Amino acid sequence: MSPIAITPKPPYYAVIFTSLRSDGDNGYGDMATRMVQLASEQPGFIGIESAREGVGITVSYWRDLESIKLWKANAEHLVAQKLGHEQWYTSFKTRIAKVERDYGI
Amino acid sequence: MSPIAITPKPPYYAVIFTSLRSDGDNGYGDMATRMVQLASEQPGFIGIESAREGVGITVSYWRDLESIKLWKANAEHLVAQKLGHEQWYTSFKTRIAKVERDYGI
Repeated sequence: MSPIAITPKPPYYAVIFTSLRSDGDNGYGDMATRMVQLASEQPGFIGIESAREGVGITVSYWRDLESIKLWKANAEHLVAQKLGHEQWYTSFKTRIAKVERDYGI
Repeated sequence: MSPIAITPKPPYYAVIFTSLRSDGDNGYGDMATRMVQLASEQPGFIGIESAREGVGITVSYWRDLESIKLWKANAEHLVAQKLGHEQWYTSFKTRIAKVERDYGI
């Protein structure tokens, strides 16, 4: 996948997930890889961008709110969310946003 | 500033800036620091999150579209945008998005 997501003409949706990790891996790395794979197979998935440097920022792009809702409710993703909440993150914020305009080179 | 931005109850706006850097610093580091400082002084600025790991992702949060428009037109910021376009980035994408919902721990 391109490190800068290839996205269609707006509108589309972004899920901005910002997090701080707890110490130790504890299965996080494998699960993160699996979740990117699984997300990319979901209906309405467009692309994903991710970087961690102290704080981690992952932005996934989706066709509409319904696609995001289905992804949030995915059974395997629910397990990951639970472990994230309990073990992997000391804090996080998820923001759901409608992309109205974009430009770039 | 907190690495995870402290943001108000939605709606508010996010500017998602994703980029790939060219080789060498060429004044980029100093300008990046200056732009965060300058942005934080603008009307309507709420907060900023940033990480680079291969790809760079910077998300700044703003009260409304008018604040984003003014920041984009800021004279010193225009100089930085020009240098970014010409020298610092091999590619970038800027997305302007309305945050509709958020949650976290």
